[in-house]
Amino acid sequence: MMVDRGARRRERTRASLLEGARRVIAAKGFDAATITEITEAADVGFGSFYNHFESKDELLRVLVTEAVDAHGRAIDGLMADESDPARLVAAGVMHTVAMAEHDPFWAWFMVRTGFGEHSELGAPLLVRLFRDVGRGVASGRFPVDDVATSVASVSGATWAVIRARLAGAASPDAGRLLAEGALRLLGLRAADARRAVASVVALRLTEAI
Amino acid sequence: MMVDRGARRRERTRASLLEGARRVIAAKGFDAATITEITEAADVGFGSFYNHFESKDELLRVLVTEAVDAHGRAIDGLMADESDPARLVAAGVMHTVAMAEHDPFWAWFMVRTGFGEHSELGAPLLVRLFRDVGRGVASGRFPVDDVATSVASVSGATWAVIRARLAGAASPDAGRLLAEGALRLLGLRAADARRAVASVVALRLTEAI
Repeated sequence: MMVDRGARRRERTRASLLEGARRVIAAKGFDAATITEITEAADVGFGSFYNHFESKDELLRVLVTEAVDAHGRAIDGLMADESDPARLVAAGVMHTVAMAEHDPFWAWFMVRTGFGEHSELGAPLLVRLFRDVGRGVASGRFPVDDVATSVASVSGATWAVIRARLAGAASPDAGRLLAEGALRLLGLRAADARRAVASVVALRLTEAI
Repeated sequence: MMVDRGARRRERTRASLLEGARRVIAAKGFDAATITEITEAADVGFGSFYNHFESKDELLRVLVTEAVDAHGRAIDGLMADESDPARLVAAGVMHTVAMAEHDPFWAWFMVRTGFGEHSELGAPLLVRLFRDVGRGVASGRFPVDDVATSVASVSGATWAVIRARLAGAASPDAGRLLAEGALRLLGLRAADARRAVASVVALRLTEAI
């Protein structure tokens, strides 16, 4: 039973460090957070940090990866009965903009990665976008020629609109405008894009944040 | 006359360093290029590098800023008689994708900056995109609600499509597909977007690279 108790204690310490890091980062931002502050917030010794994480960057990667994956699963759950790829893409785009505006992890993630340099972080979302765009192209809902170009366009547009929002340089309605623009880019007519986005807005997905 | 001769020599050394850096970087890439290789390619002493640039990064910034500004002026020149914002946006997007595919400076610039972290580098292109999108919104050619959201969407899409191309993950026709998608995002109907892009492709802009 010693092994189990040790493993449980180890898991509790790791969870405390992650939760402490969330609190410190929410208060001060990612860059300003120090390992000392994180271990103090977690109420564990400084040295035990390195029993669990190689570096502050590794802890951030864990936090972000968990947050991104939970976000993807949350959208999948909310849209479980949805079969229209247009509504799925709109929900993903709008919900991601809303997360970045409300959650410092998301803001950090979106500003730094662009789903790019650290692409493993964004992978759970890119996989879903590929799935939804691919389904829409196959069914003819998205009359476009190349799935990869379309996915890159929508993900890059999302990333840049979030950056613009965080810089105060785009409309508070940017998430909805982006979703409509993305659906037009994917080949929907303007009226159809507007209708699909409006029906997703009516779901009040972002109130779940 | 001593002052003039000194100033001319100084300017020649600076130009040699920039030209040497271009050659080394074209051969080895930005990250692998060393200051020693650059000063050897420029045929100047190692120490004189620091009379002109604070760091390798500063030299890269100078090279990229010059290249981005020259690119913007080249498109302006090629499109000088053009008044249709749709054709101007299509030319900018397609020409930028083509540059990134053919020129290691552009590849470095686009992969690293996303017109973002180092936004002063991308400013000459963003200013032009704001100008062209703004003009199209004002004239009704682009029936969209928010210029800033539209500009962010098009610039982010361009950046991400270039990244996908450099990673071998999008169609060789990605530049044209992106331009059509961007014009649809900006509110053009699919047939109008296709027509505007085809007329720009017919200009064979990218053969000027």
